[in-house]
Amino acid sequence: MGEFDLIRRYFTRPTPNAVLGVGDDCALLRLGPGMQMAVSTDMLVAGRHFFPDVDPRTLGHKALAVNLSDLAACGARPMAFTLALALPDTNTNWLHAFSQGLLALADAHGCELVGGDTTRGPLNICLTVLGEVPAGTTARAGQPATQALLRGGAQAGDDLYVSGTLGDARLALEALQGRLALPDAVLASARQRLECPTPRVALGMALRGIASAAADISDGLLGDLGHILERSAVGATVDTHIAIELLASYVDLTRARSLFDQQLLQETALRCVLGGGDDYELVFTASPAQRAAVQGASIASATPLTRIGKIDAEPGLRLVDAQGATVLNTFASLTTSTLSAP
Amino acid sequence: MGEFDLIRRYFTRPTPNAVLGVGDDCALLRLGPGMQMAVSTDMLVAGRHFFPDVDPRTLGHKALAVNLSDLAACGARPMAFTLALALPDTNTNWLHAFSQGLLALADAHGCELVGGDTTRGPLNICLTVLGEVPAGTTARAGQPATQALLRGGAQAGDDLYVSGTLGDARLALEALQGRLALPDAVLASARQRLECPTPRVALGMALRGIASAAADISDGLLGDLGHILERSAVGATVDTHIAIELLASYVDLTRARSLFDQQLLQETALRCVLGGGDDYELVFTASPAQRAAVQGASIASATPLTRIGKIDAEPGLRLVDAQGATVLNTFASLTTSTLSAP
Repeated sequence: MGEFDLIRRYFTRPTPNAVLGVGDDCALLRLGPGMQMAVSTDMLVAGRHFFPDVDPRTLGHKALAVNLSDLAACGARPMAFTLALALPDTNTNWLHAFSQGLLALADAHGCELVGGDTTRGPLNICLTVLGEVPAGTTARAGQPATQALLRGGAQAGDDLYVSGTLGDARLALEALQGRLALPDAVLASARQRLECPTPRVALGMALRGIASAAADISDGLLGDLGHILERSAVGATVDTHIAIELLASYVDLTRARSLFDQQLLQETALRCVLGGGDDYELVFTASPAQRAAVQGASIASATPLTRIGKIDAEPGLRLVDAQGATVLNTFASLTTSTLSAP
Repeated sequence: MGEFDLIRRYFTRPTPNAVLGVGDDCALLRLGPGMQMAVSTDMLVAGRHFFPDVDPRTLGHKALAVNLSDLAACGARPMAFTLALALPDTNTNWLHAFSQGLLALADAHGCELVGGDTTRGPLNICLTVLGEVPAGTTARAGQPATQALLRGGAQAGDDLYVSGTLGDARLALEALQGRLALPDAVLASARQRLECPTPRVALGMALRGIASAAADISDGLLGDLGHILERSAVGATVDTHIAIELLASYVDLTRARSLFDQQLLQETALRCVLGGGDDYELVFTASPAQRAAVQGASIASATPLTRIGKIDAEPGLRLVDAQGATVLNTFASLTTSTLSAP
């Protein structure tokens, strides 16, 4: 059996929903009546997006998770994906574990592997996900006619929410890079967040017609919120005393005082929550009139949500403490550099 | 201006046909009524699919061309594509030329760049193309309900055709690798075929309802024909005296006798035509009752076609000469190895 037969063995699956899956020049997909297709692509490179020695099972999970997160941010239902894979060699154990992690998540979301490409080369994983989302009946001013959640719809006065927890992936990354020390148990659970993120697909779909704007948090809360603010031509105020508690490890770290002084801990936590990447949570806005509906979406999708601030007419991003006072420049510089990042 | 702003500058284009193009978490596409979406992905790696010093303009062209060729093989109309690009550094001259080659071909086919990803890493180009093709009203036995051209529909008695010319890309590759010597003018035109293939999009669309099966020739005629035979559970007879003339360089090479003895030339030509890759022509089958319609599709798409054999009920591939005699084992081994390749 040749190397590509092996690869085919690991990645060829039944595709009951596709018109045609792997094995022809193209795959064929049908959309439901009145549906649009949502498309997103991500490329993961060894040494940049993951450690070369990462568990291939978690890598397979993450490669699809980061793409599903883009569908989630649009409120699209996952349908199918393609996988292009450059491999330096044919390591069957690696392929087996990678495909297991990848396909377990695919199965959990009914997202079919319909095509792809494999080649020899420096390790590179490129996925394109395809989902469907209802077309809109009427377009809002300056917005396309779609029920997809977009970045450009936030309005002054809207509430600002995030899903789940934030910053632990960054905390784990810094610990793994030797830039800070963590108790073993804290590192283990934070590392799980780094390597095995949960795409918020059900939440995204539940927020259709409720959220006014949404994005997924891949580059850090402030960076991705910045995309919403820029596209919507608005500003925002973020409550840092609420945001800091989004770090799942925060309580454990406050207990492990021997490792951190309290000031350093707060700075680290807030830096990870606001500026960390790889969270794959959703940041979104909704009118205060939608609070009950937002809570309903949270319950329906079994996804915890936290209201962390509000949208302002005045452009720019304001970080405030519990008393409403602007937080010191420590974070202003972080904000600026994060917001101006690509 | 940061590196990714530069990249964005080169690759952000208007997308009049997409519901939403670059700049949100997903792109959004609408399909026409009764249409299905065709999807294909290819990954190109430096040193494997192209020489690292190749002209970036032709590389940009080829990266999209090989993907459009997959849509052509299905008879799909190109709509949009995503581009994921790993770059070792930010070379603006390279990016400018690459994007020009890529986007000129995209514009020629009305295929919009709707999204993508850029990262630092060993040079890797991954494109996913999306096209539309009419759904079928009734499915043939064992075939999905689609008007797309598939590999599995060839019937015993069908004519076997290829578009354009074949083998020159392989001839150029062997010359560039120092495995054979070519007159400068021959190398120049053959190299054009290697680096700047023409996807047969108009032909593929014109063959809907006419061809019984089709594939594009990326791995060599016999290899890709082999996919049709396997999927259709049939065999084929190929006329080698017709096939050999598909090498565009053949006439010039027969004139340059000083370089080749006639026997070696014939062997080289036939090897390149039958086993060469990177042609990106279409190989397809059609009932003899469709000969006038096939000719009409050729004229409508301005694409030369050659009938090179026929489909047999008996499995396997037979190469015959002008007298109908089986060609010697020289090519039997080629056939076998090519057909068993992945």
